[in-house]
Amino acid sequence: MERTDVNTLGEFGLIDHLTRDFPLQQASSIKGVGDDAAVIDNGNLCTVVSTDMLVEGIHFDLAYTPLKHLGFKSVVVNLSDIYAMNAFPKQIVVSIALSNRFSVEALDELYEGIRAACKAYEVDLVGGDTTSSPKGLTISITAIGQGEKELLVYRNGARPGDLICISGELGGAYLGLQLLEREKRLWLENPNMQPDLENQQYAVGRQLKPEARKDVIEAFRKIGLKPTSMIDISDGLASEIFHICKQSQVGALLEESGVPINHEAQLLALKFKLDPITCALNGGEDYELLFTIRPEDVDKVKFLPDIYIAGEILEAKDGIKLNTKGGNLHDLKAQGWVHF
Amino acid sequence: MERTDVNTLGEFGLIDHLTRDFPLQQASSIKGVGDDAAVIDNGNLCTVVSTDMLVEGIHFDLAYTPLKHLGFKSVVVNLSDIYAMNAFPKQIVVSIALSNRFSVEALDELYEGIRAACKAYEVDLVGGDTTSSPKGLTISITAIGQGEKELLVYRNGARPGDLICISGELGGAYLGLQLLEREKRLWLENPNMQPDLENQQYAVGRQLKPEARKDVIEAFRKIGLKPTSMIDISDGLASEIFHICKQSQVGALLEESGVPINHEAQLLALKFKLDPITCALNGGEDYELLFTIRPEDVDKVKFLPDIYIAGEILEAKDGIKLNTKGGNLHDLKAQGWVHF
Repeated sequence: MERTDVNTLGEFGLIDHLTRDFPLQQASSIKGVGDDAAVIDNGNLCTVVSTDMLVEGIHFDLAYTPLKHLGFKSVVVNLSDIYAMNAFPKQIVVSIALSNRFSVEALDELYEGIRAACKAYEVDLVGGDTTSSPKGLTISITAIGQGEKELLVYRNGARPGDLICISGELGGAYLGLQLLEREKRLWLENPNMQPDLENQQYAVGRQLKPEARKDVIEAFRKIGLKPTSMIDISDGLASEIFHICKQSQVGALLEESGVPINHEAQLLALKFKLDPITCALNGGEDYELLFTIRPEDVDKVKFLPDIYIAGEILEAKDGIKLNTKGGNLHDLKAQGWVHF
Repeated sequence: MERTDVNTLGEFGLIDHLTRDFPLQQASSIKGVGDDAAVIDNGNLCTVVSTDMLVEGIHFDLAYTPLKHLGFKSVVVNLSDIYAMNAFPKQIVVSIALSNRFSVEALDELYEGIRAACKAYEVDLVGGDTTSSPKGLTISITAIGQGEKELLVYRNGARPGDLICISGELGGAYLGLQLLEREKRLWLENPNMQPDLENQQYAVGRQLKPEARKDVIEAFRKIGLKPTSMIDISDGLASEIFHICKQSQVGALLEESGVPINHEAQLLALKFKLDPITCALNGGEDYELLFTIRPEDVDKVKFLPDIYIAGEILEAKDGIKLNTKGGNLHDLKAQGWVHF
């Protein structure tokens, strides 16, 4: 029998491959695979569903991730997908597989973080599964949200002339990870050392305790703004722009000077000999929102805190370009995360 | 720091412990943790949500489980929870974590089984996550169903005098597992041997390719029967009766002579020197429905195929008893599955 390594397809290629032959049979299935969340029709209000799986040794390292933070983050990354549909999460179900090296007290810490996220975002834990695993910890969370049908925002609504907006500064989570990984390497070489996180609360916090932008979605409702397309930035800005462009069948021009990068993150990038814009484009895990608006809505955005306009949607034939600070026009490349 | 082994609480004790301090904040959360599925209010129709995680080496052994069957079963066990609410599953989301020992072709087989289940039960695959794992295969599925609010059936509605009903024969799945485990042991001792499944298609089929009782729920609708309580039999009849009794605050009298056990399964049990009733009570994985009905509904049940009346609900003070074929009255014990 033929044997194709899963690496050859990449994460998105693999998902496309596996889910290509699943025709929707239910009238209530408005949106299936391929957006931040699935959409199920319930009349005026739609149910919006998103799921994520976090695996020890792949998505998190317990050497530097407190279990409470892990619980919080596991919930937040799912809620972020619901907000990215312009909807509000209401419930979650949480499944955990764990080896017997975890105690009840360790699980309590994990659930303390889950509880803190439920409280902060007003979502209810309504179900789940708890089972053992031969090795390691796996967390699978499904978030269930609600949104008015006509207010839901998909990845496929961007049109040429729309402005590209970002809800906050990027690159911090990635640089926090670099810092934590460096300290772990040093600690493995010399277990007596003390970690030196250089007072980098910002970057480390972005990595270990990200927030989902509920406030931005609430602000959209308040000012009556409906983006034309939206996605949350989990895999890096470049990858997310590619998703929007592919599904909207458009091109894009991203201005390097418009991509928001935190000052501390910039300094940290230079210390690691990394280009800050590369961290923002390919780093991921910032959980900010990337969205597009019609040009006539630009005045509304002024009333929002923290929104950066970083480019413009083009015709598909114009490609997906980055205009650097030096004035050079490059093809944007999407790396995203490669887990396999 | 104190260290309590998760074993000390047991599966259900652990879930109770971890989820005890999660007050419901959303008005739409009708039912949280503690039934076959969570229930979310959407007006007349409710959304019903259930999730299950299957871990290699704990819930399945790829030495004797074809990936196609595994995909099918992973979906069915979730759908079974939705039917057990007297609701109909409509959508699923599927998350998979897998090590690089799995090829694209292997995943295709798994998804062929998932596809077959989606087709058979008319549910749509609408989302998921695919990621790598340092070791083994983990499958997490969330099923989303729909039911009229006034027709949903919970575990807590059984009343003294109600009749205990079972939708089909029990014990087969457990005996199929014994057979497969025996053949695996023999094969490990002598890899040249051919498996001898003794033409036990029935028991092996019950283990590897269970079905959820969609037909029973459809029949309930047709004849206008609403059970007073219901649960699916995943952990063994005894464990499920305990769940019904605990949540309904009642006792029960189960008649051994009324517990349906397939003839082939009985013979197989004797071959394995097991008591057939023990296999039915504690074996699990048959995915039949256990439900209770008001005594005046007993005539309606006659129009249903395959329904067995196996006892009666008592007052809580009368305890949970088994009346053996020999006429002895024993306290029923619930073992369920112990994974930890």
